[in-house]
Formats: sequence, structure tokens, C-alpha cells
Amino acid sequence: MYWSKYFIPTSKEIPIGTEAVSHQLSLRAGLVHMLTSGVYSYLPLGLRVLKRIEDIIREEMNAAGATELLLPSLHPLELWKQTGRDQTLKEVMIQFKDNRGRDMCLGPTHEEVITDLVKGFIQSYRQLPVTLYQIQTKFRDEMRTRFGIVRACEFIMKDAYSFDRDEEGLKKNYARMYQAYQNIFKRMALDVIIIEADSGAMGGKISHEFMVTAPIGEDAVVVCPSCGFSGGVSGAQDEGGSCPSCKNEKLKKQVAIELGHIFQLGTKYSLAQQAQYLDENGKLNPMIMGCYGIGVSRVIAAIIEKHNDAKGIIWPKEVAPFDVEIVPLGGDDSGAMNALAQRYYQELQAQGLEVLVDDREESVGRKLNDADLIGIPLRIVIGKRNFAEHKVEIKKRNASESLLVDIDGVMAKIAEIK
Amino acid sequence: MYWSKYFIPTSKEIPIGTEAVSHQLSLRAGLVHMLTSGVYSYLPLGLRVLKRIEDIIREEMNAAGATELLLPSLHPLELWKQTGRDQTLKEVMIQFKDNRGRDMCLGPTHEEVITDLVKGFIQSYRQLPVTLYQIQTKFRDEMRTRFGIVRACEFIMKDAYSFDRDEEGLKKNYARMYQAYQNIFKRMALDVIIIEADSGAMGGKISHEFMVTAPIGEDAVVVCPSCGFSGGVSGAQDEGGSCPSCKNEKLKKQVAIELGHIFQLGTKYSLAQQAQYLDENGKLNPMIMGCYGIGVSRVIAAIIEKHNDAKGIIWPKEVAPFDVEIVPLGGDDSGAMNALAQRYYQELQAQGLEVLVDDREESVGRKLNDADLIGIPLRIVIGKRNFAEHKVEIKKRNASESLLVDIDGVMAKIAEIK
Repeated sequence: MYWSKYFIPTSKEIPIGTEAVSHQLSLRAGLVHMLTSGVYSYLPLGLRVLKRIEDIIREEMNAAGATELLLPSLHPLELWKQTGRDQTLKEVMIQFKDNRGRDMCLGPTHEEVITDLVKGFIQSYRQLPVTLYQIQTKFRDEMRTRFGIVRACEFIMKDAYSFDRDEEGLKKNYARMYQAYQNIFKRMALDVIIIEADSGAMGGKISHEFMVTAPIGEDAVVVCPSCGFSGGVSGAQDEGGSCPSCKNEKLKKQVAIELGHIFQLGTKYSLAQQAQYLDENGKLNPMIMGCYGIGVSRVIAAIIEKHNDAKGIIWPKEVAPFDVEIVPLGGDDSGAMNALAQRYYQELQAQGLEVLVDDREESVGRKLNDADLIGIPLRIVIGKRNFAEHKVEIKKRNASESLLVDIDGVMAKIAEIK
Repeated sequence: MYWSKYFIPTSKEIPIGTEAVSHQLSLRAGLVHMLTSGVYSYLPLGLRVLKRIEDIIREEMNAAGATELLLPSLHPLELWKQTGRDQTLKEVMIQFKDNRGRDMCLGPTHEEVITDLVKGFIQSYRQLPVTLYQIQTKFRDEMRTRFGIVRACEFIMKDAYSFDRDEEGLKKNYARMYQAYQNIFKRMALDVIIIEADSGAMGGKISHEFMVTAPIGEDAVVVCPSCGFSGGVSGAQDEGGSCPSCKNEKLKKQVAIELGHIFQLGTKYSLAQQAQYLDENGKLNPMIMGCYGIGVSRVIAAIIEKHNDAKGIIWPKEVAPFDVEIVPLGGDDSGAMNALAQRYYQELQAQGLEVLVDDREESVGRKLNDADLIGIPLRIVIGKRNFAEHKVEIKKRNASESLLVDIDGVMAKIAEIK
């Protein structure tokens, strides 16, 4: 991709009214744009990151045996009355009457809709278990939106739902999702703290939160500085308490953000909505459910919080919007340097890499600062002096030093270090 | 993918209250499911088709120089007041007041939002032209939803917007999109009739509709039966009139559905929203806009309308949910036939094909009927009698005859005919 033909509106200024580093950098690097408080557009670079995150989630969910579908945002309120959540979630739920006089709402989550769908198609124990998921836009009328895409009124979630014959099946599915979540966050270069948590409005007994420590968090966790033991502050552990697995250490309180939450729902929804199946003996039983969420939009913010420096974002390899950025610094008068950039572009693309060429007529300083800001993992800088000596510079965004490489040795070097 | 582990709820029954073939088949083949009138879920098979259609659109839009982003569905109504379309589109627009007392609406289209975004980032003629697009969910409060996903309250659209310095630039971009649309529909095996049309609520002067003749249509076109000349009935041409390019022929009226619509908007939005740029002489000018829509959801219905027979759907190759379906008919007692199915599955996947294995414990009749119903282009049937003679059957969904092939000759045959 050539920068001049793309749309990456970068900015040096720290946007007014932003506190969090991730909020500032996601605006400055041209990832997102605020339409109105709590509502964001994904600009091309941000959309690329979003899609890479979605692809990781998809791969791990499919590998764990879940099947993707896509549920609607418009729901009949009637369905929510079956579980009483038209009332318990009323504060955040956008409700309206449509032209036909139907009471409708925008889905803040999808337990009711998926339970209704599954009960229409599944009658027998032979058809169970089944785990369905979607990556889809949710709407919540938040009074206090925060930190840009961290807490917004419109945001993207991955939500999965499992349906089993019995508790044993649920526990198996739950364990599989637990493992899938660990894989997902590891691939995104996020060290998660997993905490047994309160099930809140979702219902059910057992649930686990997948948290990342970051100042954009709204929860507190206690972590043992030496053995890594962790817990929720609202739970059994408290700051200053002792750590069970290494008695001498005192627990430290840290702010953390919830990125994922999985729940053993049990029969809350299947009883209320009569989602039943016939067992081997012809007896009707309620399906045993689990649900599994990841806040896809806020994952972007969390990654930026954990991977940045004073100059900008440092994208982990698997979620970077491009793999390599080529920065020719010859200006207009150097056709040879631009031609070299184009040659590298084609050679790297032939290797299956996603490549951005900063072909803009901008100053050397602006180009290098923007490269640091948008944080592509690998950079090839074609500078005048080096070029005269038949050399170019290769720099990893997360390294302080760069490598000086012969012009014709670039592909070999990239293959070696990428 | 193994059918038993997937979620394809097929049905023999014609659903109550459905008239259109595409509506019936999309429900019976387990592509979509109605949550409430005008609101549909995409089941796994339908989502696969949707994604293949989206990928074709993406490829052609990117090749035409457009850049993808993602705009929100929640809009401040204030923005729509700038163009007066809070009133002109009021009937279909879902409006509500949020918890903070803001007047909000759900986007039925995105001219206002994209114009607002672009004007914030583009100041100079140097930054033009730019064409941005998204594939995103739209909301319209339709009183008369029709034919399932054809006219729904929530649906997926590709909408693109071009911004140019002058009319000449717009005309170039418009021609590029016109060509991209021809490519897109051709790849989807849809013969489109292109008609110069009324711009309606969008504004601007010149616009073209991309129509496909089908009984689910809501428009009428006249077509010359011999030379292919066509026109809109509301326009200059009428049934019974003569065809300009072959004088002897009389024009025939046909019902058609609009799948795409492109508009030369001009300055309607840029004037109302003050989206201006500085030209070479430092003078402010309104940007010259175009917009380009495709109804992604309804494209699925149109493809089914054009590609089906009495037994079910006949997916064109480029949009099929799977490339090959393997149907072992040995039942439980034939481990060898199931093992062969598994071998083909792996070999075909290694060739990069998407493969579905019908491993269900269902009758021969049910499996073959379902295969016809869901319409995968290529089918390998492993039947008992043929298997005993070291043979399997290969059948194209759109052919009446099948081929009998030696068990070990299947891969070569598939490579030849696929």
C-alpha cells in the first residue's frame, strides 16, 4: 500500500480531553475517529488491526469447535421480557417503538436471541452439544463513556454460546473456551490475569474474567509480585493480605481492564425461554448453557497500553496493520531511491507480507516520526547517505539499534529477523 | 467441515407465508433465520456466502483504488439536520433520545457521517481525490418488509464515497466504480441491466442502477429481446415502444431488483456540511462527491433467484459456501467408506478447497436431497455399490449427468473439472 493513496491522518498534537495513552495514540496514529462521545469510526489502519484481531479470535474459536454465525442487532423487546432482562438491563438498553408499533431494542448482548434460535432447531440430545459464536456490533447506552474505544456506546464483541446436555458437557466446553482464551490473548501479546469472578447480570455460578493490568482499567486485582498469584479485590483477596503460594509476600493492588469474561450460565436462559431437548429416555430437559465474551474493540486499546513508548505504538507482530514499512527519504529528486522502495515493496509482497510505503512528499523528520507513531514492527529506511554507499537501514520498532545492510541483502535479512 | 459438527438446519417444508423462491430456499437450506419480521440471523452457511460476496466486493473496490474503513451506526441527529435529511428520511430512520438526552439515530446510509469525517481531515487539493468505502449494517424502519432478506429493517450494504476537486475527477471516479460494479456482478454470475436512473433522496444529477430481472424485484425495466437494449420504465422507454438499436423489435417489460446504485452527488452534501478544500490558488471550494452502494444482503437473494432448480440452490462457483461436498452413503457399518471420505477431505483441503463432509447418520435419500438443496457446486458421492467396484461418483450440481471415477482417480478428475 502507498501511503499517498491511503488514508492515515496522523497528528502530532495530543487530542484535547484525552488522558489514556491508548486513547491519545489511537487518535494520533489515525486508527479511529470520534463521531460523537462514545461513538467511533475505524479508519483504515484501525480497521486493519481490528481484522487481524478478529482473525486470531476466529482461528482459535474454530479450532475449539465453535461455529460462526451472525445475529441481528434489532431485537423484539418481547424476547427480553421472557428473562426479565428488559428491566435489569434497562439502563443501558436502547429501546424504541418502530413504525408498526412494535417494541424493539438494540442488542447489548445476545443470550436471549441465541437461545430462541437454538430452541427452534434443536430438539434431541443427538444434536447436542453445540457452540455458536459471532463477532458483531453491540449497543449500550453508557452514561459514562471512557478512554475512547474502551467504554463506548457502540462496540464490537465476540460472543459465544454453548449448549450442552448436562453439567459435565458444560464443564468440558468451558475448559475448552478457557484454553482458547489463553491462546487468543497470548497471540495478541497480552499477559492476562485470570480471576474467578462475579457473574453479575448474566446469571449462573462460575465465571472467569480475563484481565490485563493497565491504567485504563476499571477493576482492581491483587497480584503477588513474586509468584504471580492473582485475585479480584472484591473477592477473597485484599491488598496487603498474604499470598497463599508464597507466604512471605504481600499482595499488591493493581488497576486492570476486563477483556474477556466466560460464564457457566447453567439453566437461567433455557428455563426462562423453554429451550429444552429430549434425552435418551424421551424426557424433556433444559439445555445447559455457557457464554463467552471478548471485547474486541477494547482489546485494541489494551494492546496499545501495553506496547508503546514515548514515540508511539509498538505493534506486536500478529496484530500489526502492516508487517513492514518502507521509508524512502530521497524526496522528489531521487527516482532511484523511490524505484528501490518499489522493488522492495514487490519483493516483500511476493513473500506474503503486508507492506506500507511512505511515498509522501513530507520531510525526513515527519516521515520518521510518523513511522514511530504508527508502529509497524519492521522498517526499511532508504536514506540519501546510506544509499550513496549502496546500503539501507533496517530497524525493528521495538529495538533501539538499526542494522545497516547492503541494498541487495535486504530480503535475506528480513527473512532472517522477521 | 463435518456436517455433524456444524450447524446447517435444513428443512423439506416450504415455510409458511413465503412466496419468493429465494426466500423459501434461503430458509430451507439453513442460510438465514427470521428473528422477527424484517430481521434475520445469518446461520453458518449463509454467513459463508455473505463473506464470499463481501470478499469479491472488497477485491474489486480495492483494485479500483478505494480504501476501506468502518463507520458507526449510531449518529447524532444534529448531523442529519445539516442536510435536512432528518426530515426527508424521517419515515425510515430509527430515532431516539439517549441517556444523556442526545437526539440520536441509526444510520440508514452514511453520506452525512463520511462528509463530516472527511472534512475534518482533508484541507488541501493535494489530499484529493479520495474514495472510502465500508461494508456495514444499515437500519431502516420499513413498514413493508418483503421477501426475507430482500427488503429488511436491518441489512448489510457496501457503501463507497468519492471526494474530488472537480467534475472531471468525479467523472473519472464514477467511471472506475461503474467498471468495478460490472466486474463484481459478473463474478457473482449475475447479468445486470444498467439503467440511468432517478437520484431520489440522495441528490445529484446522474445516477445508474444495477438491476437483475427477478420476480422479487420492485422495479420494472424494459428490455429488447434481441439486442439487449434496456431502460427504466419510469424513464424514457415504455413497453411496446421501439428499441433504438434494432428498430423492428418491441420492448418487453420485466420485473427487476436493484442491487447497486451509483450517484454523481456533486456538491449537495459538501455545501450543506461545508466540506471544502483549498485549491492551488488558495481559494476554498466545495468537494465534489459521488456515492456508490451495493445491497450485499439482497445480492444473496438475487443469486438464489437466478441459480436454482426444483431441488434447491445451484451456487455459482465464486460465492458457494463450500467448493466440494463429500457424501459417504455407507452408514454406520462402513468404516472403509467413511475413511475414504476423510481421505478425500484432507486431499481436497490440501488443494486449498473448502470442503463439507456429510457425515450424518441420515438416510441416503435425505443426504442426497439435502445436497441438492444446499447446492454445493461439486459433489463426490461414495455409494455402496460403486465402492464395491472401486469407484465413486462425481457430480456437478448444475449438470444432469454424473461421472463414475476410479477411487484413486478422484483428485485428478476434480482438478480437471473444478
